[in-house]
Amino acid sequence: MAVVLQVHFPFDGPFDEAMVEAMQSLAHTINDEPGFYWKLWTQDAEAKLAGGVYLFNTREQAAAYLDKHSRRLSEMGIEDIQSRIFEVNEDLSVINHAPL
Amino acid sequence: MAVVLQVHFPFDGPFDEAMVEAMQSLAHTINDEPGFYWKLWTQDAEAKLAGGVYLFNTREQAAAYLDKHSRRLSEMGIEDIQSRIFEVNEDLSVINHAPL
Repeated sequence: MAVVLQVHFPFDGPFDEAMVEAMQSLAHTINDEPGFYWKLWTQDAEAKLAGGVYLFNTREQAAAYLDKHSRRLSEMGIEDIQSRIFEVNEDLSVINHAPL
Repeated sequence: MAVVLQVHFPFDGPFDEAMVEAMQSLAHTINDEPGFYWKLWTQDAEAKLAGGVYLFNTREQAAAYLDKHSRRLSEMGIEDIQSRIFEVNEDLSVINHAPL
């Protein structure tokens, strides 16, 4: 059963196009993470938050990535990382056109 | 710019197949909500949580749905509804194969 990883944290920017410039190299490396399917990059410039919603194959793979990503964010000076891993109810998600 | 709505709340079940039975009628109605693209149904039977990750066209449409859904959950006796709306950074999300 696939799992969703949700992460967000306080972030002063850059957002939008400048965020693409700053983060696109990192984004390409994420495609190679074990069990990774996709990531939605999330941002809220007004609330000064950024993060992501990820789909992984297993909870163990999502947790391993979260551990790696949290260390990377900490090295960038980012604190107060909020995260949660959920299982996906696939039959209900298929009714609602979700990308699995 | 599309937005992500994340919702979760304490939930005693049903989970898995029984959740599909209980919620499939509701799921079909969600497809008709204004600005709705898709919903991933999330669950954690061990932590007793359930929720969803949604993609909507605009923040206003996501907020209107959240208001409606929160009232519906409250009527079901569900409290402590956690929610957040983020904008999607589309260029970075495309690199990571995200469903937009």
